[in-house]
Amino acid sequence: MGRAPLAAVVGAGHTRFGALAEGPRSLLRQAIDQAVASVDRGLDRAAIDAVYLSTLGFSGWQLGNSSAIAAEEAGRPGLPAVRVENACASGGFALRLAVDAVASGHRDLALVVGLEKMTDVTNARRRYWLGVSGDTEWERLAGLTFAGVYGLMAARYEHEYGPLRDALSEVAVKNHANGALNPNAHFRQPITRDQARAGPPVAAPLGLYDCCPVSDGAAALLVVRPELAHRFTDTPVLVVGSGAGSDYLAVQDRASLIRLDATRTAAEEAFRRAPVGRKDLDLVEVHDCFTIAELLALEDLALAPRGQAGPLTLSGATRLGGRLPVNPDGGLKAKGHPIGATGVSQVYEVFLQLRGHAGARQVGGAEHALTHNVGGSGATAAVHLFSRG
Amino acid sequence: MGRAPLAAVVGAGHTRFGALAEGPRSLLRQAIDQAVASVDRGLDRAAIDAVYLSTLGFSGWQLGNSSAIAAEEAGRPGLPAVRVENACASGGFALRLAVDAVASGHRDLALVVGLEKMTDVTNARRRYWLGVSGDTEWERLAGLTFAGVYGLMAARYEHEYGPLRDALSEVAVKNHANGALNPNAHFRQPITRDQARAGPPVAAPLGLYDCCPVSDGAAALLVVRPELAHRFTDTPVLVVGSGAGSDYLAVQDRASLIRLDATRTAAEEAFRRAPVGRKDLDLVEVHDCFTIAELLALEDLALAPRGQAGPLTLSGATRLGGRLPVNPDGGLKAKGHPIGATGVSQVYEVFLQLRGHAGARQVGGAEHALTHNVGGSGATAAVHLFSRG
Repeated sequence: MGRAPLAAVVGAGHTRFGALAEGPRSLLRQAIDQAVASVDRGLDRAAIDAVYLSTLGFSGWQLGNSSAIAAEEAGRPGLPAVRVENACASGGFALRLAVDAVASGHRDLALVVGLEKMTDVTNARRRYWLGVSGDTEWERLAGLTFAGVYGLMAARYEHEYGPLRDALSEVAVKNHANGALNPNAHFRQPITRDQARAGPPVAAPLGLYDCCPVSDGAAALLVVRPELAHRFTDTPVLVVGSGAGSDYLAVQDRASLIRLDATRTAAEEAFRRAPVGRKDLDLVEVHDCFTIAELLALEDLALAPRGQAGPLTLSGATRLGGRLPVNPDGGLKAKGHPIGATGVSQVYEVFLQLRGHAGARQVGGAEHALTHNVGGSGATAAVHLFSRG
Repeated sequence: MGRAPLAAVVGAGHTRFGALAEGPRSLLRQAIDQAVASVDRGLDRAAIDAVYLSTLGFSGWQLGNSSAIAAEEAGRPGLPAVRVENACASGGFALRLAVDAVASGHRDLALVVGLEKMTDVTNARRRYWLGVSGDTEWERLAGLTFAGVYGLMAARYEHEYGPLRDALSEVAVKNHANGALNPNAHFRQPITRDQARAGPPVAAPLGLYDCCPVSDGAAALLVVRPELAHRFTDTPVLVVGSGAGSDYLAVQDRASLIRLDATRTAAEEAFRRAPVGRKDLDLVEVHDCFTIAELLALEDLALAPRGQAGPLTLSGATRLGGRLPVNPDGGLKAKGHPIGATGVSQVYEVFLQLRGHAGARQVGGAEHALTHNVGGSGATAAVHLFSRG
């Protein structure tokens, strides 16, 4: 215990996730305005001194140099701004860069904003835009999609540890139940385990209810040097650990199909530097782009023994009210997955939960939390740890 | 004087720039291997603890999540790695993130690598890939190219300050002369002012010799905490200032066509924090994507009074042997402009020059230098200052 926090989150904003009418600039502005408005003692935007934008520039709305737009939409054109792209882990890495920036003493208050606008292109283009985050040479051009990759992982897991169908369905049921309590979620309809099981096949053994949706949305955070946090609020959320890792881009080059070593590396770094251990966690937000990914995450984060994430999930331990709620906001599965926004959105949920503002989905007395954000099929990952300030 | 350096560069590598046979992975590997080999006391790659990749993922070789590949090609799969994309300024911003990382105390030794592979696609695709770094909604979709934007800037400059043709041609002649001395340059043929003037028109008043080429290439840097530098070399190159800025993405939204406020903002920050003033500089590397851009840069960096960059250039002051050599490596104009590599390549040149290893183009006794890297038509910019360690 006792290591100083790395940074503090003093504000957070979040648009609805879903198939939205708003364009990208409007989504950015909504998330940023809401983050600014959330600062308890108010925020003069002149205090912002850096901007980190997380986006894939999906669908070509503005593929390049878009960080300048984030500064514009923050009402601070001219600010140093940089775009971060690590596929679906972009948001987690944007937070990490902001943490470095304030820890360096060079910056006081960074805006982290994540965005994706995915629903206004055809399916063929969407497949291309999603596909380019996986290995191009040996996987995408051979026809392997992300659902295909995660289907392979699930099949291999079943080969090693036995049938997963019930556990996968329980992940979907739990996350839909949580999403029903989240006004920003893409899907707000609870589902039954029978419904989950009966979804049309996508990539065996994964069916429709094992896959997260294609969503629009944005989320924003205000990150400050920890010693400045109390200028802005009495209840900051402290960043107490930051870890990141990578792996071979192509799944076929990796050591195993049933673990993501990038997650393991990231978690090891995050916990090594933190005053918080796994047993201290009150909730975790993991990257459940597919239901199998939530199970792998629990094992890769060492929150469940190898082969035990399924039984743990089926025991109800990861539900709201369980021993360790997982994805109380509905996760990617039900809240939605606007790619660049996802890693930022996870921290938004932690900001609400650790301040006791999560409403119907509040985890009682939550003090410590973890976020886990994965890029592509696991070539990049970021893990962060948070404590109530 | 006397402010502590922010970071130190202890190694640097650079491929040839040009239309190259090598693929992207090979280019990355060449630049990284050369950077590692350049470390005077040797480098165990196990000491690298972060990777920053600067690339546009041009031509779709691997648009997303490509930072993981940089870690692979560094021989360190698994390392925390992040891709930075700020259009043509990506390299300068990647360096800035590495500087923050080591200044934060969270990382000791960062690899910064920039890459672009541009020549293996058709012209139509290339125009798209370049165009997406300018404003999409109001400029690209209306047909405005980068040559068009810089042509507008040059035309407006002539309207304000009179004819520029001789000065523009002198920029091209000087940079081609410098490129002829750089074994890595794309163009190694000196040209005459008559040749430069007679180039076919591209976007009036700019002709062919006012435009940088489309190039392949990569460059890499090893950046450490300053207090660690002497483990690696007796002659590190110190980063003594770092600044960045942004501007409205669309040129039509900006205050002026004849200055880049992002550059001004970046320079102000870089000098504010540095023990080096403008008069101390022995050489500068500026972002001459078009000849007019070099002139604007000199004024925006306050190295020439408004309207005086032309006469300064025509006086010979910016040639090798002049008072302040500008782009001794040939600049984007002659060395080439593989987009993600450019900002990193500028620092490679500074690394050679400040250590006295620049061969035929050495600036005698160079102690202090500046790099200036611009994204798109000026929506982002990064400026760094360096001193001999």
